[in-house]
Amino acid sequence: MHITTVSRLLFLWMVLGLCLAGKAQPPRGPFIVSPQVLPDKKVTFRYLAPAAKEVKLAGGLFGASNAPMTKDSIGIWSVTVGPVVPDVYSYNFVVDGISVMDPANEDFFPNERFKSSLFEVPGFTPTIHALRDVPHGSVNYEYYPSVEGTTGTVVVYTPPGYDQNPGKRYPVFYLISGTTDTEETFFKAGRTNFILDNLIAEGKAKPMIVVMPYGNMEARIAEQTGNPKPADPVRDSPDAMVRMRRFEQDLIQNVIPYVDKTYRTLADKDNRAIGGFSRGGGQTLRTAFWNPDTFSWICAYSANLPTSELEGTYASIISNPEKTNKQWKMLWVGVGTEDFMYKDVATFLNYLSVKKINYKSMITGGGHTWINVKTYLMETAQLLFK
Amino acid sequence: MHITTVSRLLFLWMVLGLCLAGKAQPPRGPFIVSPQVLPDKKVTFRYLAPAAKEVKLAGGLFGASNAPMTKDSIGIWSVTVGPVVPDVYSYNFVVDGISVMDPANEDFFPNERFKSSLFEVPGFTPTIHALRDVPHGSVNYEYYPSVEGTTGTVVVYTPPGYDQNPGKRYPVFYLISGTTDTEETFFKAGRTNFILDNLIAEGKAKPMIVVMPYGNMEARIAEQTGNPKPADPVRDSPDAMVRMRRFEQDLIQNVIPYVDKTYRTLADKDNRAIGGFSRGGGQTLRTAFWNPDTFSWICAYSANLPTSELEGTYASIISNPEKTNKQWKMLWVGVGTEDFMYKDVATFLNYLSVKKINYKSMITGGGHTWINVKTYLMETAQLLFK
Repeated sequence: MHITTVSRLLFLWMVLGLCLAGKAQPPRGPFIVSPQVLPDKKVTFRYLAPAAKEVKLAGGLFGASNAPMTKDSIGIWSVTVGPVVPDVYSYNFVVDGISVMDPANEDFFPNERFKSSLFEVPGFTPTIHALRDVPHGSVNYEYYPSVEGTTGTVVVYTPPGYDQNPGKRYPVFYLISGTTDTEETFFKAGRTNFILDNLIAEGKAKPMIVVMPYGNMEARIAEQTGNPKPADPVRDSPDAMVRMRRFEQDLIQNVIPYVDKTYRTLADKDNRAIGGFSRGGGQTLRTAFWNPDTFSWICAYSANLPTSELEGTYASIISNPEKTNKQWKMLWVGVGTEDFMYKDVATFLNYLSVKKINYKSMITGGGHTWINVKTYLMETAQLLFK
Repeated sequence: MHITTVSRLLFLWMVLGLCLAGKAQPPRGPFIVSPQVLPDKKVTFRYLAPAAKEVKLAGGLFGASNAPMTKDSIGIWSVTVGPVVPDVYSYNFVVDGISVMDPANEDFFPNERFKSSLFEVPGFTPTIHALRDVPHGSVNYEYYPSVEGTTGTVVVYTPPGYDQNPGKRYPVFYLISGTTDTEETFFKAGRTNFILDNLIAEGKAKPMIVVMPYGNMEARIAEQTGNPKPADPVRDSPDAMVRMRRFEQDLIQNVIPYVDKTYRTLADKDNRAIGGFSRGGGQTLRTAFWNPDTFSWICAYSANLPTSELEGTYASIISNPEKTNKQWKMLWVGVGTEDFMYKDVATFLNYLSVKKINYKSMITGGGHTWINVKTYLMETAQLLFK
């Protein structure tokens, strides 16, 4: 549909809405279409704010760093940007300096702190993270007994055919998101289910269960005991390490037993993987290194362990590469060259090389983004359990 | 924790954040705790906006109709309201006239159009919709082949013990949310899973599967074919009726067969219920009346059928009360006296009375709100399949 046609329809809809507002029905504002991906992969964004003085579009990853929007006669601000590389992006409107989500778009980035809308620019041929016409797994929100008497929440992907094959058991990938993310982020922003559905349909990944836990035990405890949520600690600080331990305790003592009891898992080391992004990558590496007999597959997305910690806490693992290299089927690390953690990750990989600890790595462009997380997930999902 | 203590901690956290901003880690703003429910059920809301001229709290259902907030020296605006009756509420901040969600709160109201945060004031003893320490069911996001070649999304609650009792089959309640809601709204805002968990634990409801479909086929088709979403039609208009038919087609031809294939259902009329709120209530009544042999239990929350439609399309149902009253186990209608649909619902019930069609009704105070929806869900869930 042509943009001017959309504008005219919007106007008519608004007039109709005003005329019918007396019909014992709450009046609604004009109907806004936003965002709208055009055939050439340009994208139009619209926001209704007749009284605003200035509206901008914020979405640095698709080239809209505070792109100015212009107002039409109805009060709808709009801007068309791109062409945009097909992917999933987050964005906000900045309305007189205030960041808001797009009211016309129900897709959002699940997060404890920031509020952003999500949109997808589909490929000319479908991307690997697109909803395709293939058999689909399901995504299950589960509740389990967690630390300190709280009830934990965890999101679990079961692969296509899980319900139809009651005799079949599956390997399990524990997948942890980053600071301020929630247990929903790898589902809603990371498209974990669609990525697995598509890779499985193409025969590129083994059917597996993916378990996405919440990484912030302290927030959960505070919420359920009526206390204010504590702030996030500084990375690798003593407080951060206490919290890493509490996460590990929950995963090992609560989440894994719950999943093994509730789902038809292959409940042994070689069929158990762990991976995560950012803080979740730190939780991944530590949980795996603290429990070297629990996971055979370890995936760190934009994450590392500091050298001092490797030489201290994990000396027995580092000093015995022959044993370590037999113990784990895969230690995988991915990072982008523009990631603020790139330098630390490079130091980590160089250290592993010197110590002759086997690993696989993937260095991409880009930064600390969910675009890269999806790339790393796509790569590792094809390697696991093979 | 006392409020001034929280303020001091916030300030220290911010200073710490600024000091450490150089440590190759993205700087974060001060850590805001919001909302915070106090022991006396008053609630404090906080929003960081050093440059804003005016910030208000909008939450009419808990008595905050644009309650003014005041700014402290850091730029954190706050207000304490209440005591607030224990329940789940939506709210927004209005920042220099612009409505925004609470950045410090990850809970939100799933909706196509408005963006609101959600918070809960817990009871002194837990409410029936609270997360309690009882056996929990799980909530599953499923994908199924839907109308016009699209892939449908549906959210399915399975009761506690579903996975542990592989020989057991369950009755099914199809539950549809309202205009601009999504398939997530009955889960996230309606607390359907916690309500069922608690009622089942108390022996007040039969264990059942609850299926929560998306009610807007036209938006789904538009999204998946790359077209702009169409506006919502006026209630009971010809366009609305065309859309009701498409919803019914999807539910009868696609959703129910998918659910019966995927879950261990009792797949007969007497073990199948349908219910819904607002537009979902209209979809409920029409789908049930168009398919009188498909559902034995019908629940309309704040919804009705117009007299002209009853006398026209459903003449055979209305004119034969003896047959109709045997055909259905329950026709249940609930509405609040302040609901904008109250008058239409009252007309509907009076008409049913005159025509000697059996029904149960529940008239409450309050309006067209999810507080009332939860009340109606609690009431009907205890009646179904008995």
